[in-house]
Amino acid sequence: MDRLDALRDALRAFVTDRAWDQFHDPKNLAMAVASEAGELAAELRWVPNTDADTHVRTEPARQRIADEVGDVALTLLMFADRAGLDLATCMENKLAKNLAKFPVEKVHGKAGR
Amino acid sequence: MDRLDALRDALRAFVTDRAWDQFHDPKNLAMAVASEAGELAAELRWVPNTDADTHVRTEPARQRIADEVGDVALTLLMFADRAGLDLATCMENKLAKNLAKFPVEKVHGKAGR
Amino acid sequence: MDRLDALRDALRAFVTDRAWDQFHDPKNLAMAVASEAGELAAELRWVPNTDADTHVRTEPARQRIADEVGDVALTLLMFADRAGLDLATCMENKLAKNLAKFPVEKVHGKAGR
Amino acid sequence: MDRLDALRDALRAFVTDRAWDQFHDPKNLAMAVASEAGELAAELRWVPNTDADTHVRTEPARQRIADEVGDVALTLLMFADRAGLDLATCMENKLAKNLAKFPVEKVHGKAGR
Repeated sequence: MDRLDALRDALRAFVTDRAWDQFHDPKNLAMAVASEAGELAAELRWVPNTDADTHVRTEPARQRIADEVGDVALTLLMFADRAGLDLATCMENKLAKNLAKFPVEKVHGKAGR
Repeated sequence: MDRLDALRDALRAFVTDRAWDQFHDPKNLAMAVASEAGELAAELRWVPNTDADTHVRTEPARQRIADEVGDVALTLLMFADRAGLDLATCMENKLAKNLAKFPVEKVHGKAGR
Repeated sequence: MDRLDALRDALRAFVTDRAWDQFHDPKNLAMAVASEAGELAAELRWVPNTDADTHVRTEPARQRIADEVGDVALTLLMFADRAGLDLATCMENKLAKNLAKFPVEKVHGKAGR
Repeated sequence: MDRLDALRDALRAFVTDRAWDQFHDPKNLAMAVASEAGELAAELRWVPNTDADTHVRTEPARQRIADEVGDVALTLLMFADRAGLDLATCMENKLAKNLAKFPVEKVHGKAGR
């Protein structure tokens, strides 16, 4: 079974077992995604760009960052599932749009806004 | 092939083709995750909890929300990959921690902080 | 003296005394604003709209929320000052734009996007 | 009159004139603060630390950044006022806590987490 599908099913059980469906409407979950993303940002806010690749590979930051990545992704997967969206499909569709939106010859070596 | 693995490989090509590796260090990508999460939050900021499930299923909001979900997830996948982390593994490990952290008998029907 | 001006001067001393100017470039401070805003969002993520006005007036949430409001505002004031911007002027100018952007006859009783 | 007090009064009229009080409960406004903070972060996500001070002083980014700073601050001021909190007082109280929390001799030249 696809790993995201297995995670989605495990999250459904996690939420149902705790009777948390009542709190997990799409508005609350979108707000939770923003707060988890803020925690990930906090891990790197004082780290210069030039140290970032090393920083994320050095304990104890590495484990904290892996956990924050997990939190953002799990919350986003719960949001998508509650909204009746398949997370991997959203990613595949948006990547297809980005391929068209950012033609290589136009954006090569240039940062977008 | 697992869909997340296929997406990771497609994103690597997307970034390399555009010579965007220079901009995609972990600090910049963490900041990008936060701004994409803010765009998802924006879609639901004026929607009451009681309308949220319907709102996310109604066009044109539905397509915009699917795109924002895709953006957050793609940016997070690029972050994880750049940091040498496997996104699905981060999710599986964090879910295991959350199962232990929130015992059913202690949190049933109660929202966490 | 205007209270924001006094706070700006006190923050300058706070940062200089700790030799934190080296970390407080506009990029790092913008990232810090996002993470502090995420902490404020966390306080209300599981609270329904209909309970929110009561929740923010009830201890111990009230004190935590006052502290998070302070953190977001102090970080934003440091950002503005480092960027050579006067915070109150930014607010006055943007409010003037919003008055023109949202004419009463057009938006009365309707939530924006 | 203090400039923040004048802005607070002008925002009260702005909201009342548009019958927006119904949308501006503390939960919605906290979510709006997070999305506005995400827009500010977006302005600097691809800018290296070493270019950030110059970037924020160069048009057209400068004007956009001033507007985003205004948006975050105005939304936060509306949140505080709706929650029965005085924004400047929150800042003064939190700065006093931070002075005690980060003693010079302990944190000099070291970035916090």
